[in-house]
Amino acid sequence: MLTQLKNLMTDIPKAIEEIKALNASASSDPADLIMYSLDATKVKHKPDVVVFPQSTKEVSDLIKICAKYKLPVTPRGAGTGFAGGSVPIKGGVALVMTKMNRLLNLNKDALYVEVEPGIVNGELGAYLAKENLFYPPDPASLKSSTIGGNVATGAGGPRAVKYGVTGDYVMGLTVVLANGEVLKTGIKTEKGVVGYDLKKLFVGSEGTLGVITEIRLKVVPLPPAVITATAVFEKRDDAVNAVTKILGAGLRPRTLEYIDRTAIECVEKFIKAGLPANADAMLLVETDGRQEDAIKEMQAISEICKNAESFEIASGVKEAEAQWKTRRSISASLQRLRPKKLNEDITVPRNKISKLMERVDELSKRVGLPIICFGHAGDGNIHVNVMHNDNDKESETALKAVDEIFDITIELDGTISGEHGVGLAKMPYIGKELGKTAIDISKALKKTLDPDNILNPGKLFPST
Amino acid sequence: MLTQLKNLMTDIPKAIEEIKALNASASSDPADLIMYSLDATKVKHKPDVVVFPQSTKEVSDLIKICAKYKLPVTPRGAGTGFAGGSVPIKGGVALVMTKMNRLLNLNKDALYVEVEPGIVNGELGAYLAKENLFYPPDPASLKSSTIGGNVATGAGGPRAVKYGVTGDYVMGLTVVLANGEVLKTGIKTEKGVVGYDLKKLFVGSEGTLGVITEIRLKVVPLPPAVITATAVFEKRDDAVNAVTKILGAGLRPRTLEYIDRTAIECVEKFIKAGLPANADAMLLVETDGRQEDAIKEMQAISEICKNAESFEIASGVKEAEAQWKTRRSISASLQRLRPKKLNEDITVPRNKISKLMERVDELSKRVGLPIICFGHAGDGNIHVNVMHNDNDKESETALKAVDEIFDITIELDGTISGEHGVGLAKMPYIGKELGKTAIDISKALKKTLDPDNILNPGKLFPST
Repeated sequence: MLTQLKNLMTDIPKAIEEIKALNASASSDPADLIMYSLDATKVKHKPDVVVFPQSTKEVSDLIKICAKYKLPVTPRGAGTGFAGGSVPIKGGVALVMTKMNRLLNLNKDALYVEVEPGIVNGELGAYLAKENLFYPPDPASLKSSTIGGNVATGAGGPRAVKYGVTGDYVMGLTVVLANGEVLKTGIKTEKGVVGYDLKKLFVGSEGTLGVITEIRLKVVPLPPAVITATAVFEKRDDAVNAVTKILGAGLRPRTLEYIDRTAIECVEKFIKAGLPANADAMLLVETDGRQEDAIKEMQAISEICKNAESFEIASGVKEAEAQWKTRRSISASLQRLRPKKLNEDITVPRNKISKLMERVDELSKRVGLPIICFGHAGDGNIHVNVMHNDNDKESETALKAVDEIFDITIELDGTISGEHGVGLAKMPYIGKELGKTAIDISKALKKTLDPDNILNPGKLFPST
Repeated sequence: MLTQLKNLMTDIPKAIEEIKALNASASSDPADLIMYSLDATKVKHKPDVVVFPQSTKEVSDLIKICAKYKLPVTPRGAGTGFAGGSVPIKGGVALVMTKMNRLLNLNKDALYVEVEPGIVNGELGAYLAKENLFYPPDPASLKSSTIGGNVATGAGGPRAVKYGVTGDYVMGLTVVLANGEVLKTGIKTEKGVVGYDLKKLFVGSEGTLGVITEIRLKVVPLPPAVITATAVFEKRDDAVNAVTKILGAGLRPRTLEYIDRTAIECVEKFIKAGLPANADAMLLVETDGRQEDAIKEMQAISEICKNAESFEIASGVKEAEAQWKTRRSISASLQRLRPKKLNEDITVPRNKISKLMERVDELSKRVGLPIICFGHAGDGNIHVNVMHNDNDKESETALKAVDEIFDITIELDGTISGEHGVGLAKMPYIGKELGKTAIDISKALKKTLDPDNILNPGKLFPST
C-alpha cells in the first residue's frame, strides 16, 4: 500500500502563461490572490493564479494543463468552510467555481434538479420553494455557501435529523478528473445498482479526487407547514434525555437544536431575548408537514418535554424568527466572552451526549477556558467552542483542549467531524479516528484517481 | 487507465490442501460443490472448494492463502440473487458466509445494530420487532436472503419508496481486503465526514472489492401501525398517474406496488382472489406510523385515487395478508402463462412509467411474447418479465426483447438494474448505461483494491 503521496515539481510561470492563454478569466491580480487565499478559518496561502471557469469544458481544458505541469489546483466555492479545505496551501490554481452557478434543469415530476456547483444553497432553496419543492440540507452558511462546496464537504445542517445530509440527495455528478477526462456518474432514478457507486466516493472528498462541475440533486415536495418551538430546561440532562425520547418515540422533528447555559447567557447579554436566568439548556424544535400533522407532532413533543420549565410554540413566522434569532446569535455573542474560539463539530451517538457534556465541563474547569456547546443534538452533532483570549498561552491551552476533546469524542464512539470536513484543520487528528488500513486504502484510491497529486494537495491525509 | 483485468494462474490442488489444513469446514464434497455452484439464476459453475468461515480472522487467514495462490474467491450468502453475482464462475473458493450469522450488538439508544453478514434479513426484522425497532429494507427474498448479500448487492424492496435502500442504513463495515488485511470503516453516529466514505464503495460492489464480515446498520423505531389498501383501475394510466400525484402531494406511503393486467389475470386464475375482470392495473399501497396518522394518510391517498374502480382498505391483518397474497403470487402464477421467464428489474424516473409501459406493450405485440410488468412503482422500479416457452427460438426472441427493453430504459433516463445488481446477468449490458470513463475508473479502483483479481472474478465488467 502507498504510504506517501508524491511531491510536486513544476514550471509555474510557464504553466500560468499557458493557462492565461487559454482562459481569459485567469488572474494574477494581487487582490484576487489575497481574496482566494483563505476560507472561514484563519489559515491562508496564496495561489499563483485564480481562474473562474464557466463550463465543464473550460475546467477540463484547464486541468489538462495542470496535469501537464503537475500544477496544484484547488477547487472552491464561496470559501465558507471551517476546515481550510479550499485554501490553496500548495499554491497553483485557485479554481473558483462561483461563475458556474446556473440551474440547468428542474424535473418536477421525477423530483430532481440539475445545477452547476456555484449555485448558492439558499438561492436554490428560494427558487425551489416557488415551485413548491424543497432541498432540505441547510448548512448554517446557506445564504452564501455553494452547492458544489456542500457536496465536496458532505455538508449537514439542522434539518439533517429528519432529512439527512447533502450526500443523501446527490443522484448524479459530472466530475473533471485529474487528467482532464470528464466522468458522468449516477442516475436519474430513485434507485440503481449498476457498477460501483462512484458518486458517493466524490461526495465529501473535498476536491481531492476530481472537480465537480454538474450536480443532480433529489428534491422533495415542500412541506406546507413548519411549526417552531423553544423548550427551556432547568437541568441540562432533562433536555438531552428529551432528545433521545423524542426520536425513540418515532417522532421526526425536522430540527432539534441544543443550546447550553453559557451560550444562553451570552446571547441574553447580546440580544436580550428574555430567556430565563436559571435556564441550564434550551432546545429549539421544528416539525413540518401538513399543518395539522406538524401541530400534532409538536404537541407530542411538548408532552415528552413536560418537565421543561417552559415550552413555547411560536404562533407565527415572526415569533418563529425570534426563536431562531437566539440560535443564530450564538456565534456572534460568544465573541463577547472571549475574542477567539476554536469551533469543532464533533458528533457522538445521541445516547452519549450527556456524557460528552460532563467530560467537556470537567475539561473546561481544569484548563480554565470557557467551552460552549450547542448544535444539532438530534443527530449528536455538537459544536464545541473553546473560547480564549488572543495570547500565546491561552491559544496553546485551547489547542490542547481541542486535542483532548477529540480523544473524548473517539472514546465515546464519536467522529471528530460531523459536517465540516477534514481539510487542513483536522488533518493532524484523523489518525485518532481512522485506522491505518483505512488511511492506506484512502491514499491508494487517491493515487489511482490523481497519480501526480495535483488536486487539492496537502489536504486530508498527513503526508507522513 | 486500465482496460483489462489480469487473468489468474494458480496451483489449485496445493492451494486447496493449504485451505483444508487451515479451516476444518473446507469441503470438496461433490454435493457441496453442486449446492454452491448456483444462485437464483440458471447459470452454474462449480467452485473447487467450499468454505464456511466463522469469524473475521478465519476469512482473513483464508484470503491470505487465496492471495498467495491467486485463487479466486467468491463470497455468498443465501444465493437468492437474480444476477449470478454469487456464482463462482472462475472456480476457486465458494466462501459461504451463512455460519457467520450472529447478532453482535444492539444499541437501542443510539439506534444501530451490529451483525455478521450471514444473518437472514427476516430474522433480524423479527428480532428487532420484539425490541420495537425496525430495519426497513425488504427485498422479496427477505425470508431467506442474508444481510451480507443485501449489502453486497445494494438490495431494495417495496418499502424503499419511503425508507430508502440497504445502503441508506449501512453505518459501518468490517471488510477483509484482497490481501487479507482487515478494514474497519464507518461511524457509530448519524453523521460523519472524516476521510473518503469507503463504506459506500463496498455497498453494491458484489463481493468484488472485499469480503464483508461485520455490518453496522441504522435502525428506526417500529411504526406502531400499518394500513394496507388495494386500488383497482380500469385504465392503466390512471394508476400510474395516481403514483405521481400521491408522491407529488408529499404523502409517503411505505409501499406503492403496481400490478399490470396480465399479472392480475394470471393471479386470478391461480388463487381466485376475486379481482374484477375488467381491471387494467392495480396498486397495493401501505401507509405506516401512528395509527391515526397512517389512517389519515391512507384517506388522502384514497382521495387521489378517486377514479379507481375500487379502493379497498384492509380492515385488519388478515385482510392485509390477503391483499399481499395477490402481489406475492405473481411470480408463481406467471409460470402458468409460459414455463420460462426473463425477469429484469429496470428502473425509470416515475414520470416515465407510462411511457415505459407503452413501449413494452408495443414490443410484446411485435415479438409475440407476453411481457408482464409489476413492482415498485413508487420508485419507478418495474419488474419486467418476458415470458416464453422452453425452446431455442422463443428463448432467443426473449433475449432480444430484453436487450431492447434495456435500450428503451436508457432512452427513458432509467437504469438497467434498480436492485438486483449486475453480476453475470447484466454484465454484457453495462456499456449501455455506464460511459467508458466510468467503467475505466471502476476497473482502476478494482485493480487498486484487488490487484490480482481474486475477489469474485469474472463479474461486473466485461473483460474486454
